[in-house]
Amino acid sequence: MEESFTALVRPYQERMERELRQFTPFPEFTDLRDPISYFFTLPGKRVRPLLTLITAEHFCDDYEGAVPAAVAIEVLHDFTLVHDDIMDDDQFRRGYQTVHTKWDVGTAILSGDAMIALAYQKLLTVQSPNLIAMLETFTDGMYIVCEGQARDKSFESRDDVALDEYLHMISQKTGRLFALAFELGYLTSSSDGTVSGTLKEMGEYVGLAFQVRDDLLDFVADQKDLGKDVGSDWRRRKKTYVTIGYQQKTKEHSQIPPDLFALPEFPAARDAVLQAGIVDDAQQFIEQQLHEAEAIVSSINFSHPVLHHFLQFLAERSY
Amino acid sequence: MEESFTALVRPYQERMERELRQFTPFPEFTDLRDPISYFFTLPGKRVRPLLTLITAEHFCDDYEGAVPAAVAIEVLHDFTLVHDDIMDDDQFRRGYQTVHTKWDVGTAILSGDAMIALAYQKLLTVQSPNLIAMLETFTDGMYIVCEGQARDKSFESRDDVALDEYLHMISQKTGRLFALAFELGYLTSSSDGTVSGTLKEMGEYVGLAFQVRDDLLDFVADQKDLGKDVGSDWRRRKKTYVTIGYQQKTKEHSQIPPDLFALPEFPAARDAVLQAGIVDDAQQFIEQQLHEAEAIVSSINFSHPVLHHFLQFLAERSY
Repeated sequence: MEESFTALVRPYQERMERELRQFTPFPEFTDLRDPISYFFTLPGKRVRPLLTLITAEHFCDDYEGAVPAAVAIEVLHDFTLVHDDIMDDDQFRRGYQTVHTKWDVGTAILSGDAMIALAYQKLLTVQSPNLIAMLETFTDGMYIVCEGQARDKSFESRDDVALDEYLHMISQKTGRLFALAFELGYLTSSSDGTVSGTLKEMGEYVGLAFQVRDDLLDFVADQKDLGKDVGSDWRRRKKTYVTIGYQQKTKEHSQIPPDLFALPEFPAARDAVLQAGIVDDAQQFIEQQLHEAEAIVSSINFSHPVLHHFLQFLAERSY
Repeated sequence: MEESFTALVRPYQERMERELRQFTPFPEFTDLRDPISYFFTLPGKRVRPLLTLITAEHFCDDYEGAVPAAVAIEVLHDFTLVHDDIMDDDQFRRGYQTVHTKWDVGTAILSGDAMIALAYQKLLTVQSPNLIAMLETFTDGMYIVCEGQARDKSFESRDDVALDEYLHMISQKTGRLFALAFELGYLTSSSDGTVSGTLKEMGEYVGLAFQVRDDLLDFVADQKDLGKDVGSDWRRRKKTYVTIGYQQKTKEHSQIPPDLFALPEFPAARDAVLQAGIVDDAQQFIEQQLHEAEAIVSSINFSHPVLHHFLQFLAERSY
């Protein structure tokens, strides 16, 4: 299954890689160009631009006009990663040094800032009667993503984060960008905006599923599939669907260790998570979100082969 | 002179203060709203939005339509200050704690990021047939300002910065925002863009004059007029028109101390600067820029009373 999916999405991904490799504006001043080019060419799943392209392809039979919007959303996502890495003081991302580690904090702040300008520059080249609407939703999305990150940050100093609060945070931090990916693809190509709100709603379900699968993989993935350290959320005592869910389970089950973060090493934490049954809960939550998304897909007859496989991929992905 | 100028600009400034005080979107989440509101309501000269408003007033007899653009440029400027303060690790700005000092670095990064989104949100509410052109120049300006800041940062580790390089840097970091202020005011109100390039050129002259006067005031201002510590550039060994110009003078005059930054205390550095004649050089440079700007003002008959006073103010300002 995953192999055929990989083959199916390759042309879109290759197109995005090419766009990002060529996207080195203002080449004269290398202090800013180098970290930006470096980050643009790190390996990535390019999931968000993929969704933009297939949405445009479905609603307009062609994705060419949506390429700048797809680049814009990937670059917006990249900006958030560069700035988040500073805040979390992460040294590596997918095995590569983060910008503030390879350069310094100031360079990483400025690179992220400049990426925002680059994202808008790209988006402004879209030829669409809906360009203003696209810019509006892009801008609102950017604010919401910042707010989501601020909420995530506020959770660090709290021990009482409820699952609902967590879900609201990831609907902002992750869901909103997925929603935007669908919206932009649709608005590029469609002259009326009738399905826009529906796609946005669908995107949020997809984003929630994506993020909770991420949370789950941090505990159950195979190290070599994941491409990053398994257990890194646990080591950083991050609030995730799994760790918050676990805390709730301790109230019901007295036989599981009361404090997941107090366990001496990661395998013990993984065992405790498995024992608590939180993996099943998380997987059930993911499938529920995907079920909601599928229902919307059917209702608007969004029958793109990649979308169908993508939703399955989200439920099963191991990386 | 300065008193009548103050009276003349008060209505514009009061309008801006009111707009910024009311500009507290997404009030539900205080972690992000509070630092943004705090920074928006710190005292400021509001010079850039003033230029936007008077340009709109001149070219359209009314500045009302340009108010959102004026807010956008002030907010864009604010974002750069919040992020620059992190990079320079400045504890105070105009006597008030900086955002990363009052809160923390992560909050300051996110507040700046969110301000960018807020600036675009405001700009997108402008009713003008030139809205796309305004967004384009706003976006290019933002990139250039980031590049200017990156250049400024690169100067920190160098001892051989030439005056030309410095002037190019401030034309990006300061000049471009002044250019943008004029451009946006003009584009809000004018249906053709014929004078746009001319105003941009004028704005860069104005920005250079503004910045070099700033550099000069750091050495010669009266502490209580300036509202910040005199000599702070010197203490931080900053490359400015004055310090770079001084270094050049040491090659010509063997009787002045060879290293300005090696002097034991600020009064000695100020004396050395005065002795080297760099104050006159800087003032001459400022007047040259303003002369160029005045020539453009005449050529396009941009006869707004505030502009006339503003250019004089730039030459003489003590704060």
